[in-house]
Order: sequence, then structure tokens, then C-alpha cells
Amino acid sequence: MFKVNTNFQKLPGSYLFSTIAKKVAAYSEANPNADIIRLGIGDVTQPIAPAMISALHSAVDEMGDAKTFHGYAPDLGYPFLREAIAKNDYQARGCDISADEIFVSDGAKSDSADIQELFSADARIAVCDPVYPVYVDSNVMAGRCGTYDEKSGKWSDIIYMPTTAENHFVPEFPKETPDVIYLCLPNNPTGTTLTKSQLQLWVDYANKNGSLIIFDAAYEAYISEDDVPHSIYECTGARTCAIEIHSFSKNAGFTGVRLGYTVVPKDLVFDGVALHGMWARRHGTKFNGAPYIIQKAGEAVYSPEGKAQIKEQVGYYMNNAKTIYTGLKDAGFEVYGGVNAPYIWLKTPDKMTSWDFFDYLLEKVQIVGTPGAGFGPSGEGYFRLTAFGSAENTLRAIERIKNI
Amino acid sequence: MFKVNTNFQKLPGSYLFSTIAKKVAAYSEANPNADIIRLGIGDVTQPIAPAMISALHSAVDEMGDAKTFHGYAPDLGYPFLREAIAKNDYQARGCDISADEIFVSDGAKSDSADIQELFSADARIAVCDPVYPVYVDSNVMAGRCGTYDEKSGKWSDIIYMPTTAENHFVPEFPKETPDVIYLCLPNNPTGTTLTKSQLQLWVDYANKNGSLIIFDAAYEAYISEDDVPHSIYECTGARTCAIEIHSFSKNAGFTGVRLGYTVVPKDLVFDGVALHGMWARRHGTKFNGAPYIIQKAGEAVYSPEGKAQIKEQVGYYMNNAKTIYTGLKDAGFEVYGGVNAPYIWLKTPDKMTSWDFFDYLLEKVQIVGTPGAGFGPSGEGYFRLTAFGSAENTLRAIERIKNI
Repeated sequence: MFKVNTNFQKLPGSYLFSTIAKKVAAYSEANPNADIIRLGIGDVTQPIAPAMISALHSAVDEMGDAKTFHGYAPDLGYPFLREAIAKNDYQARGCDISADEIFVSDGAKSDSADIQELFSADARIAVCDPVYPVYVDSNVMAGRCGTYDEKSGKWSDIIYMPTTAENHFVPEFPKETPDVIYLCLPNNPTGTTLTKSQLQLWVDYANKNGSLIIFDAAYEAYISEDDVPHSIYECTGARTCAIEIHSFSKNAGFTGVRLGYTVVPKDLVFDGVALHGMWARRHGTKFNGAPYIIQKAGEAVYSPEGKAQIKEQVGYYMNNAKTIYTGLKDAGFEVYGGVNAPYIWLKTPDKMTSWDFFDYLLEKVQIVGTPGAGFGPSGEGYFRLTAFGSAENTLRAIERIKNI
Repeated sequence: MFKVNTNFQKLPGSYLFSTIAKKVAAYSEANPNADIIRLGIGDVTQPIAPAMISALHSAVDEMGDAKTFHGYAPDLGYPFLREAIAKNDYQARGCDISADEIFVSDGAKSDSADIQELFSADARIAVCDPVYPVYVDSNVMAGRCGTYDEKSGKWSDIIYMPTTAENHFVPEFPKETPDVIYLCLPNNPTGTTLTKSQLQLWVDYANKNGSLIIFDAAYEAYISEDDVPHSIYECTGARTCAIEIHSFSKNAGFTGVRLGYTVVPKDLVFDGVALHGMWARRHGTKFNGAPYIIQKAGEAVYSPEGKAQIKEQVGYYMNNAKTIYTGLKDAGFEVYGGVNAPYIWLKTPDKMTSWDFFDYLLEKVQIVGTPGAGFGPSGEGYFRLTAFGSAENTLRAIERIKNI
């Protein structure tokens, strides 16, 4: 008699962004003429830039010709892309990462959900609170998080590291030593980050305690300050304690194109087992490579034209971030983030809960944001707005909020 | 202190096709002038047909224009594709499957590896022997298969259902009742299949025993005989016991394009839990949709032009299958498959082991096939050749084998 994986039933409600989509759809249906501005989900709005479009067209042509057709991609990615990544994202920054330590995938969401397959069933994980919900949910599905307490919003077996205004968004080392530490820096949702010397302390901590760090660098392209690391491998000793996950979604607008990569250094060895070989086996068994045409678009991201075009696009969004940050500050809100990340994190006014503030904004001014509580218990009382809208809509949204 | 998932270490050797690739690379390096013909891995060689190339180009253009740009796809697939699938692959065949029971993915390999996340940790799985290795390996990685016995080539907790020449490739109901039954029909690697009335017996068996059937229909487009079902939902009662997995790799040549889908009927409920909701949650949490441009190519597969073009391509490969089947038969081999599938399954001559025959063919006539033992213990003494080469190479390969 078949029995289901009961861990799924432990998950409270639906995935955060599905819930938001449903609420917005319901509002939209009830108010068909409402002019809704979406600054909620971290989805980009600018089109794919010309260098990548051109690479896509060329690759499509190759696929239509027997002489240049490409079947199954190499499981771990085409060498042309792995080499471009190693050279541009690592070696150019002085990080000792080679092409065969890069694993190309269909996106950072898949990788950050799947990486827990390498952990023992009883691994204790630590997450910043608030944080991207996929880290927690993927571990819950694998039965690694104990039971959920509705009241506190916490899982019994997860170690939470609050990152709030009170500690200036710098998590403290937890009392209990975690086996795995998830760090998303620049952080989603708070838009804050750590300096290189602050991150070095975490690398030292992990090496001392035999912990594994999962470092999510999805927002790296938005870093504007000099002392903020673009990669954890800028820190000494990270090769023996850290896996790094990257996305092409936010730097190159690939949310609907799907491309990402994960770095597993060969020095990452626990109890004699190299995680590099394990992740290669995982890819080989459960994945059949990212599409050729999309890997070619990824390669174009590192061309001189591609680099210039995505820099301009990131600049466009960061200008929106400034508009939101400044506008909200002028309107009297308590605001964070927005300097090294496309996210603005604000305190809800009048001690409203974050879901109440979500409903309030949607109903009063037809603006969709993301309730902080959706990212963890310490996100309660906060709210996330993203800089990924159009400049025009971002300005209109801020005007509406100012005029409430 | 971090500990790894030790189930990975239980897996013997590397993934089958990685091992083959390494052996061929080594031979190729030692014999740089060797004219190797690859009839091993099931990868297509014909280019993507014009209707799909045209859809890809149009979709790329859309992605380059702000007015038509597409960001994150709906988690479960674009409605245009889900509807085309439901209509053409199901409703047109009289199967009661609706668009919202179709889950679009990046390929059948991912889905067939990930589907086990829905099973309880102690689920007993049954597989045909020989079979596509991903079913077993993905369950091993989840700790569901016990221990591996080198000598028998079997896992202690897997129920094997031999499908060999002795039972005319029709598996018998196992002595022990399985929780999950994997059926790949037409079968990879044997190229054989079941008639509709034979499959109906499995559906009845599953419903009677509360078992779940995972039905892999990746080779459905190659069916040429009338009494062979294209979908398990042609059988009465399949909606309450079966999940079906589909690929665009073999019908439309999408091995390097990556697209697939899985059908989870809403009537599939165990102990009050609907698997439809679980798989939706799995997709929502761990996957971000297949790329828009590739879903548009998938839609084109169902256009009148697309249908005609892929039919021609399937015909081309089936002509190869006939060449291989007839040629080997003429040369005195014992041969199976090739009628409803692009795979030819042959008995190795002189009781050679399947890996010995692999080496023999590679060294004597520079032909790459796949050793039967790589698909399970009952595959020993057999060998798989695929019809996915070019017509010219297929003819040359058969001439070489005939002349040994």
C-alpha cells in the first residue's frame, strides 16, 4: 500500500509567492479596472539585452542544421560556459576556482533546493531570519526540520539567526553549532549584506566547527560598495567549507530564460568524501544539462557587449532602488537595503503586521509588495519592495505611497 | 560537524552513460584516427525541425522586446502548452486528462528522478529488469533500496521483475506487493512493450493493492502497432493509480532543448492526500518553470506543420531501426525490439558478457552500443543499439558488424 512522504503535509500553507499571486488575482477579479503596480516578486521587467538575444538566435540556427545540431549537453555544462564563468566571476577577482568546479544548472532556485540532497538526514541547518523560503522548505520536504510551531512560526530543528534592525542585520554565531549554514548575501529579503571582514569570520567559524556554508550569491551584481565581497571565495579558507550558488536571473534578466550555476570546490571534503563528486553524481543521475541555446546566451553575458549591456540594466534597477529608498525615507518610513541589492526592506507603520500591510497597500494604493513574515518569523513587522519594476511604475508607486 | 548523505556512496561506479563516455574517450585518445559510430546513448542526431526552429526564433524576439518580454514562467507551465498537451496527447485519444493535470518540466529525466520525493522513506519499489537506471539510482540516493550485492547486481530492498526473452518480455506480478511500480513502455532498453489488455492487468493490480504506477511514456511516438497503448490513461481506472511521464526528446529531438511533462490526475489520492497538490508544491518550491522560448517550441510540436515534421523524423529513425533489426537478424543474431521503439535489443554472441561485447564492438569495428548489464542484472548477456544515428552511419555500422 503506497504511502506518501508526510513531510509535505507539515509545510504550512502554500509557497509564499503562490499565496501572493492568488491574493492579487482575487483582488484583480473583484476590481477589474484597478491599476495594480507589482513590486512584490523579484521578477525583472527589462527585456533580454541585444548581445544575449543575438546569441540565442545564432544558437537556434545551429540547432536547425544537422552539421551544427547539439543533442544532450554535457551533464555539468558546456566547457565554453564553465570556462567563461571561472575566468570572469572568479579568476578575475583573484578567487582560486577552476572551470571544472563550476556546475551549470537551470537556475539558482533548483540548485538551492536540491543542494540539501548532499546532507545527512539528521543535519542541523541554520538560516538567517528572515531569508529566501526555499532553503527551509526544501529541508522540510526532506524531513530535516522537526515540527512547525504556528505561534512562533518556527521549526523545532532549525537554528534561526535573526538579522534585524536591532543587530544591524549582522547575524550572530548561534549558540548551537549548525552542520550547515545558509547565507544569502546580499540578502534576500533585507537587501543588506556583510563586509568582507564580517564574512571572513563566518568562514573561520565554519572551518573551525566542520560546518558547511551554502552561500547564495544571486544578487552579487548589485553590490556597489568596495568592502562587500562578490564571492565567498574572496575569503581565506572558503574552499574547504563553502558551496556558492549563482543566478543569471538578476544580473542578466534570465528569470524566464533559466540559467544558474553552483561552485563546489574540490577541497570540500568531509569524512573523506568529496562533495564535488557527489554533486557531479547528482547532476549525472537527475539532470540532463541546461539547454544549449541558453548556455550560449550565458556565454554572451561575459562578452564585452554583454557585460556593458547588463551593467546598464543593473544600473537602471539600482536607480529604481534609490527612488524607492529615498521616497520612503522622505515619507517617514524606516528603510533598509537598496544600496548593494535590488530590495528595499521597510518597517511597517503603526506596528501593522506584515500581511496586514500587504492588504493595506493592495487595497489603498494597488501596490503589491511582499510581507516580511513570509521570509521567517523575524520578518514580521517588515515589508519588501523590489526595484525590478519599470522606472515609470516605480516613480508612480512611490508617489502613491507618499500620498496615502 | 557536517555529515554527508551516505546513500550516495552505496551507488556502484558512475552513472552508466558517464562510464561509456569515459571508455569511448579513452579509446578515441589512444586511436585518434578511429572512425567511431555511436549507437549507444539514446541521443538524436537529426536537427530540430523547421516549425520548432521558427517558434524558437519568434519567442527569442519576444524576449528582446519590453512589450512582449516574459519573466518567471508559471511554475506548472504556460497554459498554452498545458492545453495543447491535454488536447493532443490525451483528449484526442479519448483519455480523460485536463490541462491542469499536466505539469511542464525541463525533461523526463528530471521528473523520473524527482518523482520519488512524493514517496514515504520506506516505500518498496518494483522495477522491470532491465530498465532505465534513473529509477533505481534516484531511489538509492534517497536511502530507499537497502544494500547492493555486487555478485547479483541487486539491491536488497528493490523488487525486480525480470523481462527477458524467457518470459517474452512480459513482466510477471511480483510475489511481494510493491508500493510503487515503475513501468517504461515501450521499454528502454529492450524496445519491447505491452498490449493494452496486458497493461490493463497492471492497472487493475495496482488499484487492487493500493500501489502507485509510475508510467514512463518517453518512447510513445515510436509505437507502430494498433493494440499498443500510447498512454496508461487508455486503461480503465488508471486515474486512481498512475502518474505518467513524457519527454519531447525522442519525438521532437529535444534532447539538447530540454522539455518534458508529467501527468498527475486529481483522482490520485492515497490516505486522503492528493498527489496532484504534492507535485504542485514540489514544483513551486524547487523549480522555476521551463524557459518561455522552449515552451513555445513545445507548443509548435502540436501545430499541423510540427506534427508532420516530427512524424517524418520518427519515420526516419524507425527506418534505421528496421535496418539494424533486419541486418542483425540476417547476420545470425537473436534480436528483439525495434518495432514500437527506437531500440534494438540483442543477445550477445557466444555467451559473452555485455561489457565484454561492448569492448569487443568498440575495438573490432569501432561501434559504441550499451551493455545490457548497465540496465539491471537481467540485462546481462544482452546489448542495446539505438536507431538515433544517421541513416548512413546506421547502414555502415550494420555492414561492419556483418563482416566481423
